[in-house]
Amino acid sequence: MSQSDHGPRERIVPPGDDRERLHCPDCGFIAYENPRVVVGAVPRYGDKILLCRRAIPPSYGYWTIPAGYLELHETTAAGALRESWEEATARLELGPILAVFSITHINQVQVLYRARLLDPAVEAGPESLSVALFDWADIPWDDLAFPTVRWALEAERQAPASGPLQPVGNPTPD
Amino acid sequence: MSQSDHGPRERIVPPGDDRERLHCPDCGFIAYENPRVVVGAVPRYGDKILLCRRAIPPSYGYWTIPAGYLELHETTAAGALRESWEEATARLELGPILAVFSITHINQVQVLYRARLLDPAVEAGPESLSVALFDWADIPWDDLAFPTVRWALEAERQAPASGPLQPVGNPTPD
Repeated sequence: MSQSDHGPRERIVPPGDDRERLHCPDCGFIAYENPRVVVGAVPRYGDKILLCRRAIPPSYGYWTIPAGYLELHETTAAGALRESWEEATARLELGPILAVFSITHINQVQVLYRARLLDPAVEAGPESLSVALFDWADIPWDDLAFPTVRWALEAERQAPASGPLQPVGNPTPD
Repeated sequence: MSQSDHGPRERIVPPGDDRERLHCPDCGFIAYENPRVVVGAVPRYGDKILLCRRAIPPSYGYWTIPAGYLELHETTAAGALRESWEEATARLELGPILAVFSITHINQVQVLYRARLLDPAVEAGPESLSVALFDWADIPWDDLAFPTVRWALEAERQAPASGPLQPVGNPTPD
């Protein structure tokens, strides 16, 4: 079914609003669209970083940190832990927020945590081809799935070992 | 029009998904629901804090910091600046992120910035009854619109004058 023929597909400005929203002329539903939250973590085990090789599009076959869409009734921290478990059976202890990125062209806000991997016995979940722990020197910089993965890894590499951590934002306008 | 009679209103687990989503039996549209991002700021002018008295529900007549839903194609910082302008004609210079709150029962993630108010000539926008600059001693603690307003104000009061700022999270489970 094409969404151009069915469901919310006409742009109207609802009464009392100041911008266009998607409206379904068949049933009257208004679909308020807002950016979605992606939550994730940069899991560290000693000097190694956990990465997952994606088994789903986009960027199939490329490496990412565990991350995904925040679900309803979930805190950002709980979502980061859930995604890490789903993608790599990784049990984490979360640290402070490492990065908050706004990716406006795909309407995402990413909230990414520092994290300590509690057990190195990780395994690929259904959305991963494989998972692995990388030394900094071995990180596949040319095969990362998204620019934000690089940004998060660079933030982790530069983060102080202790003291308050101020999250980084986008390094360049997205 | 009641949304119980029209639009996405039946819960199904779509193929390949692992949880129920809202589906419209009339047109087939699936409305993926995720938490929404609220962006805002705690604007400071010297030792005074800008608050807005709400002209809209919920919490009509109570005081809040400038904040509102992040719109499509907007960074969290741009959204915080827009809301401050809309609610109080306040021009701000944003500082670091002061707080990231997850309010799971209303499906919000709030990203709130420290901010310096550049010009004290603020005015109530259409969603505010009035706006005012408060000394800490005069903040209407008993008439704040939401718990997160109190949390953000307390974070601002305790934030160091300089150095890296680690955002606070929810002070208690929400």
